[in-house]
Amino acid sequence: MVPKTERVTIKIGGHVFAANPDPKLISEFSGIFKKIASGGTQLILVTGGGENARNYINAARALGADEATCDQIGIEISRIHAQMLISNLEEIVCSDVPTTIREVKNLLHYGKTIVMGGLTPGHSTTAVGALVAEVTKSKFFIIASNVDGIYTADPKTDPSAKKLDEIGTKELITMALSGKYSAGTYELDPVAVKAIERSKIPTVFIDGRKPENILKAIQGRKVGTRIIP
Amino acid sequence: MVPKTERVTIKIGGHVFAANPDPKLISEFSGIFKKIASGGTQLILVTGGGENARNYINAARALGADEATCDQIGIEISRIHAQMLISNLEEIVCSDVPTTIREVKNLLHYGKTIVMGGLTPGHSTTAVGALVAEVTKSKFFIIASNVDGIYTADPKTDPSAKKLDEIGTKELITMALSGKYSAGTYELDPVAVKAIERSKIPTVFIDGRKPENILKAIQGRKVGTRIIP
Amino acid sequence: MVPKTERVTIKIGGHVFAANPDPKLISEFSGIFKKIASGGTQLILVTGGGENARNYINAARALGADEATCDQIGIEISRIHAQMLISNLEEIVCSDVPTTIREVKNLLHYGKTIVMGGLTPGHSTTAVGALVAEVTKSKFFIIASNVDGIYTADPKTDPSAKKLDEIGTKELITMALSGKYSAGTYELDPVAVKAIERSKIPTVFIDGRKPENILKAIQGRKVGTRIIP
Amino acid sequence: MVPKTERVTIKIGGHVFAANPDPKLISEFSGIFKKIASGGTQLILVTGGGENARNYINAARALGADEATCDQIGIEISRIHAQMLISNLEEIVCSDVPTTIREVKNLLHYGKTIVMGGLTPGHSTTAVGALVAEVTKSKFFIIASNVDGIYTADPKTDPSAKKLDEIGTKELITMALSGKYSAGTYELDPVAVKAIERSKIPTVFIDGRKPENILKAIQGRKVGTRIIP
Amino acid sequence: MVPKTERVTIKIGGHVFAANPDPKLISEFSGIFKKIASGGTQLILVTGGGENARNYINAARALGADEATCDQIGIEISRIHAQMLISNLEEIVCSDVPTTIREVKNLLHYGKTIVMGGLTPGHSTTAVGALVAEVTKSKFFIIASNVDGIYTADPKTDPSAKKLDEIGTKELITMALSGKYSAGTYELDPVAVKAIERSKIPTVFIDGRKPENILKAIQGRKVGTRIIP
Amino acid sequence: MVPKTERVTIKIGGHVFAANPDPKLISEFSGIFKKIASGGTQLILVTGGGENARNYINAARALGADEATCDQIGIEISRIHAQMLISNLEEIVCSDVPTTIREVKNLLHYGKTIVMGGLTPGHSTTAVGALVAEVTKSKFFIIASNVDGIYTADPKTDPSAKKLDEIGTKELITMALSGKYSAGTYELDPVAVKAIERSKIPTVFIDGRKPENILKAIQGRKVGTRIIP
Repeated sequence: MVPKTERVTIKIGGHVFAANPDPKLISEFSGIFKKIASGGTQLILVTGGGENARNYINAARALGADEATCDQIGIEISRIHAQMLISNLEEIVCSDVPTTIREVKNLLHYGKTIVMGGLTPGHSTTAVGALVAEVTKSKFFIIASNVDGIYTADPKTDPSAKKLDEIGTKELITMALSGKYSAGTYELDPVAVKAIERSKIPTVFIDGRKPENILKAIQGRKVGTRIIP
Repeated sequence: MVPKTERVTIKIGGHVFAANPDPKLISEFSGIFKKIASGGTQLILVTGGGENARNYINAARALGADEATCDQIGIEISRIHAQMLISNLEEIVCSDVPTTIREVKNLLHYGKTIVMGGLTPGHSTTAVGALVAEVTKSKFFIIASNVDGIYTADPKTDPSAKKLDEIGTKELITMALSGKYSAGTYELDPVAVKAIERSKIPTVFIDGRKPENILKAIQGRKVGTRIIP
Repeated sequence: MVPKTERVTIKIGGHVFAANPDPKLISEFSGIFKKIASGGTQLILVTGGGENARNYINAARALGADEATCDQIGIEISRIHAQMLISNLEEIVCSDVPTTIREVKNLLHYGKTIVMGGLTPGHSTTAVGALVAEVTKSKFFIIASNVDGIYTADPKTDPSAKKLDEIGTKELITMALSGKYSAGTYELDPVAVKAIERSKIPTVFIDGRKPENILKAIQGRKVGTRIIP
Repeated sequence: MVPKTERVTIKIGGHVFAANPDPKLISEFSGIFKKIASGGTQLILVTGGGENARNYINAARALGADEATCDQIGIEISRIHAQMLISNLEEIVCSDVPTTIREVKNLLHYGKTIVMGGLTPGHSTTAVGALVAEVTKSKFFIIASNVDGIYTADPKTDPSAKKLDEIGTKELITMALSGKYSAGTYELDPVAVKAIERSKIPTVFIDGRKPENILKAIQGRKVGTRIIP
Repeated sequence: MVPKTERVTIKIGGHVFAANPDPKLISEFSGIFKKIASGGTQLILVTGGGENARNYINAARALGADEATCDQIGIEISRIHAQMLISNLEEIVCSDVPTTIREVKNLLHYGKTIVMGGLTPGHSTTAVGALVAEVTKSKFFIIASNVDGIYTADPKTDPSAKKLDEIGTKELITMALSGKYSAGTYELDPVAVKAIERSKIPTVFIDGRKPENILKAIQGRKVGTRIIP
Repeated sequence: MVPKTERVTIKIGGHVFAANPDPKLISEFSGIFKKIASGGTQLILVTGGGENARNYINAARALGADEATCDQIGIEISRIHAQMLISNLEEIVCSDVPTTIREVKNLLHYGKTIVMGGLTPGHSTTAVGALVAEVTKSKFFIIASNVDGIYTADPKTDPSAKKLDEIGTKELITMALSGKYSAGTYELDPVAVKAIERSKIPTVFIDGRKPENILKAIQGRKVGTRIIP
């Protein structure tokens, strides 16, 4: 069972912010965040880059950009997503997107929701979420993805793939390492999993396409896959 | 006739960087810029925000963002466009996108091409181009737009609209003022025109959908509409 | 009638800060600001550059400075004016002069009076005031000038000039465009008027040589010229 | 055989900078770097934190610091080490320790040796080295450690441990994952190995206690363990 | 008698942070600071560099560093000390180490304890303490040194040396000027004494090896040597 | 005799920049600087605050500003003076006014003249000059004041006052300490003299009202008073 929390860090997948962003979908998520915040929990929201990040990164790579520059472009897009979310959370949110760990820690003093994107090349937004969850001493870390949990194999190609209720960080890393590690394609890269392991923060991987799953995870109800550090 | 130049500032319309950017189109433009730079001219390129900027701004506004935040989002997108162009100009370009006038002036020392996006809310990238043309003492300022010149009226709705060979800044302002002034919709807003007038920099408004027009304008050949300060 | 306000942005003309600043005059204004703030209104004060800015800009231009550098010098002087005002408002004010829109938004959280000068070359402090009024969602914007209102013509040279009770932004731009636009000489430049129009913020242009006029404008009493966006 | 290079990135283990730093040892290394630089290679040197970093981190952790703060303290110490090295390389070096990837890229223009420490929490200085090797398009990456190569097991506890001449990144990650991942204890953490793999940069792991090994590695002579991406 | 205070600035000698820092000693000091803060006094703590600063500075100087670089290294070490102290004061402290006077003034708004190290080359941490005491309008300034007061001469070499109960800034400067002024060796350098004199802040020089002396000084009990501006 | 130099640091008294700056006087000084720079010497020019700094500081102090804020205002004015000088030295100068020692060191790489004002509260521009002379390894340091040398007493009030050809730093400090130390009134404050002593840089104090004296000092001809570290 998910413990009673004061702070919760949530990685919000880039899928919430489509290539041509849909204000209605975004404001459904805002509604959930306002509800949670009104209950006294301080949220730290880390937004992903999504389709536009992937499009820009692909073009930049074709034009000769190195991987660190590709990462940086993804970070900029993720910060625009953070800014859009901030616009819809006005009463409960810091107006500024922090760009370093130092700024995150300073903003915590306000007691308001913090919304941010990526931080630095080489770190996916999921890894940033894990790091920030640790720094902010979050009670747990939620990864709102666009799949409904962690599977034993890729359900699209392997019909025997089964969704897991929980998984250890060790097994997860072994799985993560078998994937390709390249800017824009990572969701549960080794850096992210290592950060979860190191920080020992209880983590839940959920289907972030349904905003209400976030509420369920906060309330400690069974949803998605729990990652055991 | 356009005078012999040492520095030229070019505003590159956001249309060059489509919603899903096309590396081939972008590298056609790079080819032109490399050709010009190899001739000894120092280029200062200001990239626009284009369709993605408009999409994000529309969504942000619907979510409650104020106009300055909308402007800021457009600026971020324009800087990603600058970064992509830099990736394709490696040998001749400063690797950094300057974000203030002060940084632009510092980068000039390298003698290399400078690529940048917007600077600050309230200033369109065209206005930034005019300001930067002034600061860098550019010999002239080229606006590479997605229309083929300045017309007496909107050619889409008014069949009697005629393309002008040249126009004074005074008339231009009168025309500009009749348009709507709002983040993402401006191309020749009053701020930009005023900056052109103040800096007295010879300006050419060209059809930027064809890269070769830029070369023509640099060579002083007749193309688009000249703006007389 | 001026509506009940929570936030008000005031542009304070550089005339309040003479070439050799008079602490007594400045503290008269502080007295008014303290009175307003004690009533629960959050003030955002934007100070102008005045005579010293003009002197420095004239010398710099004669020495070869470009217009953007001249603007920057004016901005630095206006920030010194902001700092002086801060020194006299200790209890009710943020101790820091914000230098970007981002900083202004962050400082708003404190609920205290914010004092600032210019922001960026190409924007007069009046234009900054209009932009900041928009960003801070000010209920209205007061321009405390050193003339007693907006006239149909220059009262010094045209005896038939009449003070207007109100004027639309369209008419104002037409008037503004007839003036010369150059660093240090603008008061109601097109950029400022366009920002007022875009933000739709009710604006009052008053005689800022008498501090009590600010109070009158805040209370919605008839004073100066109202600008109708 | 190591290919002919224009740029080489070297991670210099913190052991070169003892708890009480020995100028003589440090200047032996400077001598090697000057020799390499005089041959036309641009060096990017990334210094580690060493014993003082470990001491401070241990104390900070005991005092309640989170892991990101511990990382930050290690980064600060590594930057002091960079500064000391700069003091001894005056003619051939950038005087400034870059603190972001953006600054590294800007400094490259000078063509001089760049010396830096860590960059951001969550990234060991070895991982930073790999990232910087990629961004700077280094011909190869040298890890100057305080052991003489990569072994099949820990030679201190396992007498059957054998030094490897080369190892693939896949095997290395499997080995790295079995170690403990915590600030100050990592040398070949998964993030570093992943960065080596992603950037495809030829990497040599050498005994950095003998400065001449660096020269050997640069010259492509057989030394330490090669890591094959 | 020491007056009733709202803010107190304390310079904490580097001796509290040994070459290999002892968390137990540091937390004894934290205990005292928490006690004082719980009584409603806002503390501004300036930590010194101590033995590690001296070691690094000696090595850097031997390697050819100029004095300003040596100062900067000492400043970095003093900031790490500040960060360690912050880690142990979590509830009552700003999480950020300010690096400029401007940041110090901004942090004051939080009402929490501020911990910082040095600021700029040429200023010892004692001089910084005096400057900060002035800026923060501290009621008094405590220098927690590793000697038990100011003597008429060096007690180690001169058996007739007598501890003073109080001393004027004029006499102190005369004494200070006879000492050697070099990075890392100053405790009561002329800059510090001049700042005390200029700011007219009551100052107490105490034996900082015993944490309880700080409490005594705060309570106005007789301890160490008072410096009369 | 003044030694042959590669770099020279000059403190330029604020008197060169009058309350209402005179471009003709300033360009006389530029002429001298261009002449020196054309001879291959790299100049570092530190401009003072002068009358406007004093006026603003007096007003700010009367309005309640603390001394550090007064210092900061003086610094801002001195930087405007630096900017004006830069405008008149275009070909030979860095376009940017450095604001930290780190920036000064970075700008040195360009080999061009550097122009700057003050750096930080508590340091007069003369002290900054001495510090910068040390950091830049200047061959000597020239203080261009508005008196014609250092006297045994104040020549205005003491008819027996005699101009000195040279003076040691020890005697100078004793003299300096007898003066009042307060923002805007210092010329040879103890901090400055201590920095001269510490850096062991040969220093010449000259009558800076005549630009040609600077040239004389550079050429090692007898002028003003030499300060012997």
